[in-house]
Amino acid sequence: MSDISYCPIIALKQSKIASFHPVSVNAVRFEDRFWAPRLEMNRTVTLPSQIELCEATGRIDNFRRASGKKQTDFQGIFFNDSDVYKMLEGIAYSIASHPDSHLQAQMDEIVQEIVAAQDSDGYLNTYFTFERKKDRFTNLKDMHEIYCAGHLIQAAVAHHRATGSDTFLNAAIRLADHLYRQFGPEGRTGACGHEEAEMALVELYRETADSRYLSLAHLMVEARGRTPSLFGNSEYYQDHKPFTEQDSLVGHAVRHLYLCSGAADISMEMEGAGYLPALNNLFEDLTQRKMYVTGGAGARHEGEAFGAPYELPNERAYAETCAAIASVMWNWRMLHLTGDSKYADVMETALYNGVLSGVSLDGLYYFYENPLADRGEHRRQEWFGCACCPPNISRTLASLPGYTASVGGRDIYLHLYIKSRVTLQLPDGAVILDIDTNYPWDGDVDIKVIAAPDSPFTLHLRMPWWSAGATVATEGAARLHLETLRPKGFAAIHLSGGAGASVHLSLPMEIERVESHPHVTSNLGRIALRRGPIIYCIEGADHKDIDVWDVQLPSNARLTTAHKPELLGGVTVIEADALCGASKDWTGVLYAPYSPVSKLSMRSVRMKAIPYYAWANREPGSMQSWIPVLSSEG
Amino acid sequence: MSDISYCPIIALKQSKIASFHPVSVNAVRFEDRFWAPRLEMNRTVTLPSQIELCEATGRIDNFRRASGKKQTDFQGIFFNDSDVYKMLEGIAYSIASHPDSHLQAQMDEIVQEIVAAQDSDGYLNTYFTFERKKDRFTNLKDMHEIYCAGHLIQAAVAHHRATGSDTFLNAAIRLADHLYRQFGPEGRTGACGHEEAEMALVELYRETADSRYLSLAHLMVEARGRTPSLFGNSEYYQDHKPFTEQDSLVGHAVRHLYLCSGAADISMEMEGAGYLPALNNLFEDLTQRKMYVTGGAGARHEGEAFGAPYELPNERAYAETCAAIASVMWNWRMLHLTGDSKYADVMETALYNGVLSGVSLDGLYYFYENPLADRGEHRRQEWFGCACCPPNISRTLASLPGYTASVGGRDIYLHLYIKSRVTLQLPDGAVILDIDTNYPWDGDVDIKVIAAPDSPFTLHLRMPWWSAGATVATEGAARLHLETLRPKGFAAIHLSGGAGASVHLSLPMEIERVESHPHVTSNLGRIALRRGPIIYCIEGADHKDIDVWDVQLPSNARLTTAHKPELLGGVTVIEADALCGASKDWTGVLYAPYSPVSKLSMRSVRMKAIPYYAWANREPGSMQSWIPVLSSEG
Repeated sequence: MSDISYCPIIALKQSKIASFHPVSVNAVRFEDRFWAPRLEMNRTVTLPSQIELCEATGRIDNFRRASGKKQTDFQGIFFNDSDVYKMLEGIAYSIASHPDSHLQAQMDEIVQEIVAAQDSDGYLNTYFTFERKKDRFTNLKDMHEIYCAGHLIQAAVAHHRATGSDTFLNAAIRLADHLYRQFGPEGRTGACGHEEAEMALVELYRETADSRYLSLAHLMVEARGRTPSLFGNSEYYQDHKPFTEQDSLVGHAVRHLYLCSGAADISMEMEGAGYLPALNNLFEDLTQRKMYVTGGAGARHEGEAFGAPYELPNERAYAETCAAIASVMWNWRMLHLTGDSKYADVMETALYNGVLSGVSLDGLYYFYENPLADRGEHRRQEWFGCACCPPNISRTLASLPGYTASVGGRDIYLHLYIKSRVTLQLPDGAVILDIDTNYPWDGDVDIKVIAAPDSPFTLHLRMPWWSAGATVATEGAARLHLETLRPKGFAAIHLSGGAGASVHLSLPMEIERVESHPHVTSNLGRIALRRGPIIYCIEGADHKDIDVWDVQLPSNARLTTAHKPELLGGVTVIEADALCGASKDWTGVLYAPYSPVSKLSMRSVRMKAIPYYAWANREPGSMQSWIPVLSSEG
Repeated sequence: MSDISYCPIIALKQSKIASFHPVSVNAVRFEDRFWAPRLEMNRTVTLPSQIELCEATGRIDNFRRASGKKQTDFQGIFFNDSDVYKMLEGIAYSIASHPDSHLQAQMDEIVQEIVAAQDSDGYLNTYFTFERKKDRFTNLKDMHEIYCAGHLIQAAVAHHRATGSDTFLNAAIRLADHLYRQFGPEGRTGACGHEEAEMALVELYRETADSRYLSLAHLMVEARGRTPSLFGNSEYYQDHKPFTEQDSLVGHAVRHLYLCSGAADISMEMEGAGYLPALNNLFEDLTQRKMYVTGGAGARHEGEAFGAPYELPNERAYAETCAAIASVMWNWRMLHLTGDSKYADVMETALYNGVLSGVSLDGLYYFYENPLADRGEHRRQEWFGCACCPPNISRTLASLPGYTASVGGRDIYLHLYIKSRVTLQLPDGAVILDIDTNYPWDGDVDIKVIAAPDSPFTLHLRMPWWSAGATVATEGAARLHLETLRPKGFAAIHLSGGAGASVHLSLPMEIERVESHPHVTSNLGRIALRRGPIIYCIEGADHKDIDVWDVQLPSNARLTTAHKPELLGGVTVIEADALCGASKDWTGVLYAPYSPVSKLSMRSVRMKAIPYYAWANREPGSMQSWIPVLSSEG
């Protein structure tokens, strides 16, 4: 195992614009019961199974074919290379966090196959080989060549950071140079129908300090929405207007969110890029009009697209796992660009709900779509023909330690509260923090400074948006109420330096009934249950003799919590006395004369809500996240 | 003008199975203020504009090209011939109802172009000509050749009935004979990916008495859902299982409803076809789980398809105009097959709401999709690249007089109540009825027997499903309460024969608040307003200073009606005192802690609801059909 000192998800140390910069994924060692087992499962079960599936489906043979090692037809979809790259990126971050020589050896074997498949001019895409070589870059709109290149670059950067080896990175540089010749200042105007390479090229710039890659990323963002148009000025491809003028999330959700991520990356590295107003407007559009309460995004199956404002159907939600992940990526970048914790709030919501629902508790099955209500028919699958989501989840999980904290000068920022040992570098030495908490089930967080340089430094604690009434106490100091201490949503605790200080943060985790803007027509008369970062749902497996779609929660019902260590990997459930049934017999009837709700015709039921992320891990049954609420006066 | 004596929409006189048979479209002369002006506009504005548009878009030139009269490229979509045929069918029924020599001359010119384009072997499809001739019938799944043939046959049958001319009918026979050689008992198993020809072939059998066409229609229904499969056993094409086993409406909505129509046609002509159980199950599925309150069908944009049970989104409703028309066609056939008026109920609901919304009040603009809520963005269009809906509406309107009544032996059935003069043939002579009513705005219907043979006959009056409390009185007889007089939903009035009798039917038209099955999640906490056959909506144009999506109707609000002769062509509106606003300020917020509705924070508003069919005929604005209801106790 190489000596890894700095393996962050994005490497902002040289940025003159970012508010702070991420820590290395190996700077944070999870010791909790929620995430640590998930990362371990990702390493020991999920990633190995993905290697097998990439082999079994010909995704790796496609590279062997391209390099001439194997005589076979191209297998699968033309963008399948990207699945292999995303998986490798996940392996790289995983071994950076947790050395695993077997996994690393497997990774390096695949890297060898990839590198061997590269053309002498740097081009690499296994679909456009042999008879299809003549078609390279002839259809930027549909064929995902630059998208695949972007994923190769991200994987190679992660591989370089995790292993120190140049092999894969040099291939990425050759490919990026090829892209630069094609689409750089001396080439033609071009970008990919599916954005992704913008982020990757900025990261390659960060890794190599070669500013050509930053310029190329910038040119690609600028290529959209112009006359003459790249992609018919279609919203689907975010080609309807220049990025600087965009104020509404449209078209394919993952694409638009990846574009936003790339634009945020450029904004942190390039003075005067001018993207921040558009990024702010698009963030407002996401969080005020187009985001599921789970952090999911992209309402429509048709075109895997954003819908109209407030169009957030529940059972027909698309909410692709990749779109929730894309939102994490974008918000992570916005957090560093602006220093505002509201982006970490959105990121955390997506992580604990709309991303985590994408993988089964056993680490082997995946959701592509993440509906918020279901009739027991939507189940996780082992793999997909278009397998973008599975390796996207595994790379996100593998890199998660890197999302927990940031550093800027003598300021330390904690974004996610996870029981862990955190080792950070200040200018004059290392700070080691012990974070003890049972988050997300409990909002008490104890932070001990195990080691620190002697000079003062500041600990900035993210105050989640839901944590009204939070308090913080430092050893020997008065308990501080935090409402007045939140520049950009962080509570700043000034510490005098040296080991020994301890900070106790208390985030009250009340159960909250959440309602939606009245124009979210799917949620009229319904509430969702949230506690801390966790969104809940009710599922058939906990309500054997009723249909959970028939449950109605009295608005004044007493909600209680109970922690169930044996249930679904250990979850805190919410329980209440509710009612079940309708005010009339609906057998064989679709429409009927209205009658006010009558509680008399309903029966009592003990309702048990589980975290949304954990649904569909038991026998199939109905599920809903937005529960009809019954007026207490009715 | 030829001498037309019998021009029904479907000609069931020889059926040994049907309960009764339709009357000729010219047997009923509308004299009302609702439909008569619409049919006149259809004849004088809509159909002439469609002729112009078919010319302007190359749809007729495609025939001139195929016959060699014009050197040009094929224009438009490969199934564009069918739009011309549907338009011609509309013209034929229109001139059957109302002679129009200019329109007839235009029709016959186009018929000449069509006939000239036919191949010597009977094949006719202008797309598959010249270099594409070799591809005929090589892709039944996608290329709509048999579908287009079906529309030609229907148009030709209507033309023959309306004009007496054999020209077009003979072309249809040659084409049907060609189909029979290809797909008949001696040919290969085949059917069209888009059903339609089944209905047409049965009608050609009825017109020619050549039972080969009936057999071919039967073979085409039987071809679906088999192993080996025609279309990959895909639900989209209703190829997932044999028709006799189908119990759920799936896939493309228009296709499945056309298939049902064809199967119903076959069932009326072929002993032992065995389709009735499936037809019953599919009707149940439509009316109990998959039909909009407007009679619209097909919830999903994706695949123009039926959704899951109870999946009936409002603003994202697809509810294609053609699907509502297809429902009319199917229910019309079921009505005759079974004699049960419940099918006429569904037919009437679709006609007055989900079909009629498809065309603007000025007869020049069309909806393809018919959402039940909107933000002011969905507007009718002059035409479509895929222009299936416009001529489908015009042929339906043109043939509407034929949908009002049926006859069987000495029994007369009235299905739709429209002020009109009706002339029917009983075995021993003509019955002439004068029907006087202001339906759909008023439920009083006066029926006078102007002429009749001397022998007794029975008048069967459809009792609409919403008409509880209906009464009927005959001249000099006691007023009859009809609950006990409804075999299959018709009230049977035995008349002694001869002129002079009069019957007064009174259908109480109360305003009804309608609610949906609780699993229609889009409609939770909402009601629709219905009065008689008319479904209402609220629209921005009547509520200038508020957003109608913010209107809430107290459950005990007093609803009143007012007839407005100058509004929207003359409509009865529903008015009520309602509230507007939300219980909290939602500016910039998508999710917030729940608080029970507070009327104190809302303001009073005078709500005015208009018929759904009439929306989007004024300035753009929000619209909703399902209105949030505010508990009177809240």
